[in-house]
Amino acid sequence: MSNTGQEYLDSLRDGRKVMFKGEAVDVTTHPRFTAVDHIAAGYDRALKMAKQGRPVKTRTFPRSVAELRQDIEDMQELEGAQRVTRLAMLGLHTAAGRMAKILPEYQHRIEAFVEYCDANDVRVVPAITDAKGHRALGPMKQQDPDAYLRIVDRNSQGIVITGAKLHVTNAALTHELLVMPTKQMKPGEEDWSVACAVPVNSEGVVILAAVPGAEAEDAAYYPYSSRAQHPYCFVVFDEVFVPWERVFLCGETEPTGAFAHSLGLWLRLDTAAVQSDESDMLVGLAQLLAEANGLDKIPHIKDKIAELILDATVVRAGFEAAVSAAKITEDGFCAPDELYTNMAKYFATMNMPKAYAFVQDIGGGSLLTAPLPEELESPLTGPYVEKYMMARPDISGAERTRLFHAARDIAADANSARRQVTYMHGGGGLYAQKLVARRHYNMERAKDLARGAAGLEVKEAASSVLADYHMIV
Amino acid sequence: MSNTGQEYLDSLRDGRKVMFKGEAVDVTTHPRFTAVDHIAAGYDRALKMAKQGRPVKTRTFPRSVAELRQDIEDMQELEGAQRVTRLAMLGLHTAAGRMAKILPEYQHRIEAFVEYCDANDVRVVPAITDAKGHRALGPMKQQDPDAYLRIVDRNSQGIVITGAKLHVTNAALTHELLVMPTKQMKPGEEDWSVACAVPVNSEGVVILAAVPGAEAEDAAYYPYSSRAQHPYCFVVFDEVFVPWERVFLCGETEPTGAFAHSLGLWLRLDTAAVQSDESDMLVGLAQLLAEANGLDKIPHIKDKIAELILDATVVRAGFEAAVSAAKITEDGFCAPDELYTNMAKYFATMNMPKAYAFVQDIGGGSLLTAPLPEELESPLTGPYVEKYMMARPDISGAERTRLFHAARDIAADANSARRQVTYMHGGGGLYAQKLVARRHYNMERAKDLARGAAGLEVKEAASSVLADYHMIV
Amino acid sequence: MSNTGQEYLDSLRDGRKVMFKGEAVDVTTHPRFTAVDHIAAGYDRALKMAKQGRPVKTRTFPRSVAELRQDIEDMQELEGAQRVTRLAMLGLHTAAGRMAKILPEYQHRIEAFVEYCDANDVRVVPAITDAKGHRALGPMKQQDPDAYLRIVDRNSQGIVITGAKLHVTNAALTHELLVMPTKQMKPGEEDWSVACAVPVNSEGVVILAAVPGAEAEDAAYYPYSSRAQHPYCFVVFDEVFVPWERVFLCGETEPTGAFAHSLGLWLRLDTAAVQSDESDMLVGLAQLLAEANGLDKIPHIKDKIAELILDATVVRAGFEAAVSAAKITEDGFCAPDELYTNMAKYFATMNMPKAYAFVQDIGGGSLLTAPLPEELESPLTGPYVEKYMMARPDISGAERTRLFHAARDIAADANSARRQVTYMHGGGGLYAQKLVARRHYNMERAKDLARGAAGLEVKEAASSVLADYHMIV
Amino acid sequence: MSNTGQEYLDSLRDGRKVMFKGEAVDVTTHPRFTAVDHIAAGYDRALKMAKQGRPVKTRTFPRSVAELRQDIEDMQELEGAQRVTRLAMLGLHTAAGRMAKILPEYQHRIEAFVEYCDANDVRVVPAITDAKGHRALGPMKQQDPDAYLRIVDRNSQGIVITGAKLHVTNAALTHELLVMPTKQMKPGEEDWSVACAVPVNSEGVVILAAVPGAEAEDAAYYPYSSRAQHPYCFVVFDEVFVPWERVFLCGETEPTGAFAHSLGLWLRLDTAAVQSDESDMLVGLAQLLAEANGLDKIPHIKDKIAELILDATVVRAGFEAAVSAAKITEDGFCAPDELYTNMAKYFATMNMPKAYAFVQDIGGGSLLTAPLPEELESPLTGPYVEKYMMARPDISGAERTRLFHAARDIAADANSARRQVTYMHGGGGLYAQKLVARRHYNMERAKDLARGAAGLEVKEAASSVLADYHMIV
Repeated sequence: MSNTGQEYLDSLRDGRKVMFKGEAVDVTTHPRFTAVDHIAAGYDRALKMAKQGRPVKTRTFPRSVAELRQDIEDMQELEGAQRVTRLAMLGLHTAAGRMAKILPEYQHRIEAFVEYCDANDVRVVPAITDAKGHRALGPMKQQDPDAYLRIVDRNSQGIVITGAKLHVTNAALTHELLVMPTKQMKPGEEDWSVACAVPVNSEGVVILAAVPGAEAEDAAYYPYSSRAQHPYCFVVFDEVFVPWERVFLCGETEPTGAFAHSLGLWLRLDTAAVQSDESDMLVGLAQLLAEANGLDKIPHIKDKIAELILDATVVRAGFEAAVSAAKITEDGFCAPDELYTNMAKYFATMNMPKAYAFVQDIGGGSLLTAPLPEELESPLTGPYVEKYMMARPDISGAERTRLFHAARDIAADANSARRQVTYMHGGGGLYAQKLVARRHYNMERAKDLARGAAGLEVKEAASSVLADYHMIV
Repeated sequence: MSNTGQEYLDSLRDGRKVMFKGEAVDVTTHPRFTAVDHIAAGYDRALKMAKQGRPVKTRTFPRSVAELRQDIEDMQELEGAQRVTRLAMLGLHTAAGRMAKILPEYQHRIEAFVEYCDANDVRVVPAITDAKGHRALGPMKQQDPDAYLRIVDRNSQGIVITGAKLHVTNAALTHELLVMPTKQMKPGEEDWSVACAVPVNSEGVVILAAVPGAEAEDAAYYPYSSRAQHPYCFVVFDEVFVPWERVFLCGETEPTGAFAHSLGLWLRLDTAAVQSDESDMLVGLAQLLAEANGLDKIPHIKDKIAELILDATVVRAGFEAAVSAAKITEDGFCAPDELYTNMAKYFATMNMPKAYAFVQDIGGGSLLTAPLPEELESPLTGPYVEKYMMARPDISGAERTRLFHAARDIAADANSARRQVTYMHGGGGLYAQKLVARRHYNMERAKDLARGAAGLEVKEAASSVLADYHMIV
Repeated sequence: MSNTGQEYLDSLRDGRKVMFKGEAVDVTTHPRFTAVDHIAAGYDRALKMAKQGRPVKTRTFPRSVAELRQDIEDMQELEGAQRVTRLAMLGLHTAAGRMAKILPEYQHRIEAFVEYCDANDVRVVPAITDAKGHRALGPMKQQDPDAYLRIVDRNSQGIVITGAKLHVTNAALTHELLVMPTKQMKPGEEDWSVACAVPVNSEGVVILAAVPGAEAEDAAYYPYSSRAQHPYCFVVFDEVFVPWERVFLCGETEPTGAFAHSLGLWLRLDTAAVQSDESDMLVGLAQLLAEANGLDKIPHIKDKIAELILDATVVRAGFEAAVSAAKITEDGFCAPDELYTNMAKYFATMNMPKAYAFVQDIGGGSLLTAPLPEELESPLTGPYVEKYMMARPDISGAERTRLFHAARDIAADANSARRQVTYMHGGGGLYAQKLVARRHYNMERAKDLARGAAGLEVKEAASSVLADYHMIV
Repeated sequence: MSNTGQEYLDSLRDGRKVMFKGEAVDVTTHPRFTAVDHIAAGYDRALKMAKQGRPVKTRTFPRSVAELRQDIEDMQELEGAQRVTRLAMLGLHTAAGRMAKILPEYQHRIEAFVEYCDANDVRVVPAITDAKGHRALGPMKQQDPDAYLRIVDRNSQGIVITGAKLHVTNAALTHELLVMPTKQMKPGEEDWSVACAVPVNSEGVVILAAVPGAEAEDAAYYPYSSRAQHPYCFVVFDEVFVPWERVFLCGETEPTGAFAHSLGLWLRLDTAAVQSDESDMLVGLAQLLAEANGLDKIPHIKDKIAELILDATVVRAGFEAAVSAAKITEDGFCAPDELYTNMAKYFATMNMPKAYAFVQDIGGGSLLTAPLPEELESPLTGPYVEKYMMARPDISGAERTRLFHAARDIAADANSARRQVTYMHGGGGLYAQKLVARRHYNMERAKDLARGAAGLEVKEAASSVLADYHMIV
């Protein structure tokens, strides 16, 4: 059952405590919280799709490569907060099987929560990254034990938690916080081994929202980034009570990594899907600028665009291979290949600075210095802009000016920098991607290939004699 | 003689036509033109230095390596618009000798202009980049002949010019526009072969000013970039009359490249000096973040910082070598080495994305998601920020929060992207730096070294037998 | 029907003219032509496989993704010259459909030739690259018209060709030269538009063979590269007669590119398959060295190996995507995806220097300075080597010494450099890969994605609003 | 006093124990030890220079920047083993001042040894790198305590040492081994804290020589690397007695690092000088190939060469800055700047693979497949080679063929790989260069620049307000 956008807006007036610049605010009316309208529009769109017989999937999980491929594709149509909710559900489902082995009750609670979210059409956001204090020290060695969110009390009704989760995008605009450990815990760290679901309006939850930039206020100058300004939320849990039916892990250190890990796989796959299109978009942007400037036949420009094409193809190949090499889990569930998924996100992220630099290079200094969009409208300045910003007859000066502003907004302004940081640290961070890649790589086979090449004894199977390939034809 | 800041402000109310968002504005009072106050403060500072017996150099030119080194060092103390004026004078002086060979009168006019600027303590900005139209075509092949600024009339009093100059930072806040050709002109392009000085308030000069971003309005969130928001100016010359005494080139195609080239050398040297410090600043920023996060002993973080150190050292070595290998020109003037100067700027610019990426990596997601500075002041939110943003006892949560905002502003927001574009396209562009490098490189010597190594006949001198160096000890 | 190795050796004594260091040689007995034994062994292996009911495919062509995948896999078992023959047949088959449209007779001749090769179990090698003379000039502008191989006479029996083909690996050891144009010819270049099959022992064919290095003579020092030393052959065609039934193109300029292009796709796919394993082999080699040196737990070493893993995964993902996205041609033939195939080869080649550098770094100076393998055998020196080359109890000093020599041979000696050049210039060269990538990329879709992001009018379909993805969780 | 080449040869027949492939050899007559002739020729050259009034400096040490510059320049004329001797003396001299503070006797012994070397015109080579065993463990934790060379006995006459030094290039062809610790030792590692000079023919010294490749045997195919094939020597010290007068450190752990560090600075400076010329040579080689192929006007080729020029300029700038920023030590001795020296060597080494790749790219497949040099001489094959290898009238086919072989030998064969490893691991290794860079970098100044930029409190001095530099003109 889908709610309307208005029902969503009403639901946010639930007593939640959202702070902005030191003061409590109503997110449904405050002018800087423009993202609330996007999310509301997403509700209405989903409603419309349901009426058209294309309901948004929320509780089905892919069971074959074809279903997986379709699922990811469908997901790309969803509004951001809804997509995150969907990913959270997939992650929970993946983790549930694992948790059943620890305590069957955990799995039942997770399934009940998934059912609740589905039935009530709520938005859920994972809350993972702790304050962490001194990064080189574990939870127990911190000066302040709350540096990692922890269980401070337990009773027959449930548990009480204290701590903070730092990078919870859109927390102020969602309904449920899906709290999970930020790292694999060790013996002795039982109090920090906790996963649970917490309604945003719970007593003790305080959200410090940071809405980046003011781009939404100047849509002409920021045609791209003005469309979505999700608030970054710093969520404080100040002795928050969580009833047992929403506690998914409590004190067992061993499976602590499973939650973030399960979610991470889905987040990274979705990111890789987005990045595939985004990389293509940057290719297209470079080409549009080259054409608008009359540079599209210049050899070194063509060469740069070809390089962007090859880079974009790496991302897409990684995504394609992740899906086509997906494996069916014990639970009959189709999960993407970890190695390819991570590879795709890793290279998409690593190559962004180059893509931005090429767009900046091809665009030229006018990316920054183009006359403001408002000059196009004024009779005093419009004709000058049209006259001097036209480079070729088939593209008007006005269109070229708008293209420069868009290109700046996408690739040479706050958005480009912010997006780099988002991809770099989201979904586990680049360092985590390297760890995951190592873990899922078949090193024994690689070593055997090397032993075979070296003429040393091979452990498993005969490996190709690669030396045989010295050919130029 | 130095003017006061107030005299400077008064001088800007001279009838100049500055447009912002389609309307004429008074730059001395409009809230978005904050740079005017920086420039005014620069006047007052210069006045103070003069009173202390340290007058700002304006008309002396370096005659030895020691003087050159001192000059560049002194220049780093100047406010931006004053520094650009100084560089314009150095560039003009370098070009003057060349122009004397074409027409002695040109040199006299240049010298008179330099004297005028000195005597009246005005601010001058070069206006170089034309609209250019279709980039693959020259001035004569453009649909609109004004795509490159040109002489549309000549008479006994002077000339009349029409066209636009696109990237004239701060034009709206200076006194004189130093117009020069954007490229080497060819025979047939006589009308586009023009260099001259034009007062900003001349009839027919219209400036479309684009003040980037709104950072100056939120100094807490933008502690770095709020300090200086120079307007990018798109300057239209609509049949502007220029008297002969301000015309420095008129119709001779051969020396057209000399102006931009002479200026370019000084601009790039100054840029390299700035980039040397800026590269060190980014090293320092990475280190401060590593310490604030408790990551400064982690091997891969140390490794990244060492890499930034080595990169910064490349820039400084280039700058040092450019000065220590400076040569005395025919005119007895000490000019920096072109090859080293270009190398320094080239690598500083090319390596910026990496430096920003490392700062982003070391800083972590909190670069974006840190609570807003205002939260620190509020009794409702301040204690939470202090508690959860503290990573180690010797750095308070408030200090760390401020450091994150500064690091974002410097390396992960509009400023970082903008600065990349500025360095990429300023002072001639990266492509021009490659051309200059090729031109000033001793290729004959390199080829002889290669011939010697190859055992082929050597043209000039015996070259080292490099094969002799196979040693590990 | 497969021949025996001996039959193959006998077949080479057919009057062919092979020159080595200025003298005619018998390749079956000359000590430097060790590759002849590999090829002979390949015949015997194929015979054995046929007897086991696994005949080597020679004339079947893949008709589905599954068949394509199996074909490529089977091909990896083949000896090099046999694999090249197989690729040549696939390339011919791909080109045949195209040629039928020009002249049906061409297709029949091609099919007859394929049948002949199959029936007689001969080895075929493509001969593509011409002498080319001055690279910036086309065939007609060369001082010597033979700089590109051309038709110098035609009569009722056939044609006469003159020219040279430069990089024909193993030509001296094969039966048929598959001559094809090195580039797309233009109108006026009819005489240079020729494709045909020429027996190696034809009158007028002279082969100048260059066997690289002398590694085969010291198998202990070169455990890897001593196994295969294919001769690079410079093949002169000095008025060679070709009967019409072996002429596949004669004077039509338009389809000249089709041959090399069709072959190139298959060559690059095969190369990508080899490079996938080779990249894994280099990962394994780095890991074995890290373990042998006791460095496998050092963070920066682990990090380097993770980077190699990610790079190797790019190659494999490209290969996987090329196969899984293969398309069925009009002829009902399954051809790999061009874009992914090229991407795989491009990155495998571009990243080789890094892989070698990491192996060199992890291996250490002992890659060069390790005691010679013979020292292990001598009672005078063996004990010293064992004592001082042992780093950890589970790997003997002798094993570590052998590993160093193999690693040097693979990644820090003639082989590594040679292999880089081979991949760089084989299968069309890196520059060609960029061209192919551009041609097969869906630029219109990319431009539409950019227009959608820029808020400009979209040509085809609604594209995703990517701005919606600003999330860190 | 200089000896003659013959005297040098005679001096090597001194009972030294040199093993090659398991057998004792006489290095003055064995055919693989061709380097002995180079070293002998170096003696004769030095003698000639002395007669011309230009004696080779051996005991003077630079006391000013000008002397330092001259010294390095003079050094480039010396034969390799003589240059290493000179560097060893400079390193010893630098260390001597430091050792005087530990024990004045150490300094006297060092000075006496320097005097001895000078008086007898001997060749000295540093012996630094130990066997090291398990790299992650220190000397005391090794299974075999001899994994690091150590003092196994001491008496009134001197000490007895046991161990091995692994990468002692040319040890078999020099007179004295300058033994020093490979790392900074810690308390408890007194037995491994030893530095001394050991004549090569000492009882117990056994040298296992590995002469790389067989290039010297085929000078036509290897015109570059055939000239110098220095043996890599693995030197075993099997209870070698060293009299006190040659013991420069014995049991003090604290100054252990000083020897290798002092030597390292000079080695790296010399390497940077060589690499400056070598980088230029590679630029010249790329240009010669571009010209020989008719590619020198192609944009992407010009661009690659410009990139090589810029890279070469980084190395030279580092070297120039290292010399011009040299500092006078307490002892009145002029030592190059550590930071710039390390930067130069670091980037020269890191960029070599790129330079080789560009040479390979510009050269083309003919680097490998060019007809052998002997074909040029034969009347049967010479005319074909001349005809088909000529690309433009001003460069004969023979010259182009020779250029390809030289370019392969330099940049695409064993030499290029070997040289990369040599630079990577010589003079301390790239990792050491990063450590040294960190140690000599002024981090406090960099942090202050960052604090200034961030608007935080500055510790030392006011730092530039860099934000002021947003300009494009």
